Amino acid sequence: MATTEFQRARSADAKQQREQTILDAATRLGARAGIRTVTLTEIAAEVGMHKSALLRYFETREQIFLRLTATGWREWGGALVPALQEQTDSSPAAVARAIADSLVARPMFCDLLAQAPLNLERNVSLESVREFKLVTLEEVDAIGAELTRLLGLSEQQRVDVIATATSMAGALWQMATPGPEVEALYRSDPRLGHAIVEVGPRLTRVLTALLGGLSSH
Amino acid sequence: MATTEFQRARSADAKQQREQTILDAATRLGARAGIRTVTLTEIAAEVGMHKSALLRYFETREQIFLRLTATGWREWGGALVPALQEQTDSSPAAVARAIADSLVARPMFCDLLAQAPLNLERNVSLESVREFKLVTLEEVDAIGAELTRLLGLSEQQRVDVIATATSMAGALWQMATPGPEVEALYRSDPRLGHAIVEVGPRLTRVLTALLGGLSSH
Repeated sequence: MATTEFQRARSADAKQQREQTILDAATRLGARAGIRTVTLTEIAAEVGMHKSALLRYFETREQIFLRLTATGWREWGGALVPALQEQTDSSPAAVARAIADSLVARPMFCDLLAQAPLNLERNVSLESVREFKLVTLEEVDAIGAELTRLLGLSEQQRVDVIATATSMAGALWQMATPGPEVEALYRSDPRLGHAIVEVGPRLTRVLTALLGGLSSH
Repeated sequence: MATTEFQRARSADAKQQREQTILDAATRLGARAGIRTVTLTEIAAEVGMHKSALLRYFETREQIFLRLTATGWREWGGALVPALQEQTDSSPAAVARAIADSLVARPMFCDLLAQAPLNLERNVSLESVREFKLVTLEEVDAIGAELTRLLGLSEQQRVDVIATATSMAGALWQMATPGPEVEALYRSDPRLGHAIVEVGPRLTRVLTALLGGLSSH
């Protein structure tokens, strides 16, 4: 009995290690050129295993990236909550800057934030969606509690703010990284100057105005 | 010479008619189940032409949907600008409601708004991207002028507002339509209540606070 339990633990541990190796490979590939182009075959090649073997650990490429999105939420919340706790300036501008800075510092998370509702949540099992949503809701609660403490936001208001911050970070990041050729086009045609997007400054301005508008009522 | 010009005009006209038939077919298919799943083969089948023949009119499926996104911008601007011109109540809440209502009334445009920077702009020629961007910038100018008139927004502020409105409409629409199975999951698990998104109310609240924050400074 003791031996069986030990073996089961060892095998669960080995499975988890293998999963982590796969997630790390997907992270490296995604960071290189954006996650849109990364295929399951490439991830398997990066890990050095057959695609069929990889499919024993993950259902689809989307499940791999949805797991990375969940990790991204945990890391984002894990950085932003203490940053907000230490915040001495509770003006909308200061809080907005803390939120925007924490997102801009995580480009692959921004990429994943835009991909999740469009692509990642749509090609995985319901159990994977549930697991992912529970992680995000936990982080929304933790970040939201700080927003209420700093700016007196209601529960609905804080959920609106976090949805805006994450949706805008995702959308602006996609607009800001259209690929080298399109970026060259934007810079060469003076009529297209407005198409060049700077994620950090715009996200900070939008969140500053949003928090200002919410906390003034 | 006159004959050649006549033939050229007739052929240009026929080409445009054929293009419109293809765009209409893509619209019907996209409206049915979201544009993500619509393939070039399905569009060709809906029109009743061979895929190879269809490729004489459009480069890729993305070019078809990018053209529909441009049409969506023109129609949205064409409805919102007069609505804002007739607006007698220039409070942030009333302006926000007009913007949100005009977007929520266009579900396929919301779908396209989220798809454009992620997928549609990435699989077309530079000329198609330029054409598309020029249409959006024209509409941004026209809508923006009304926002300045109503709320005294600066050029940067009005561009920020329109970027927020369109990005949030796209992102929220994707979150609100996760497919029937995931929606059933959200409704069956009480912990996931927050994952249910209502586009109109949230978009109106966010834009109201954003416009309030911008116009109070």
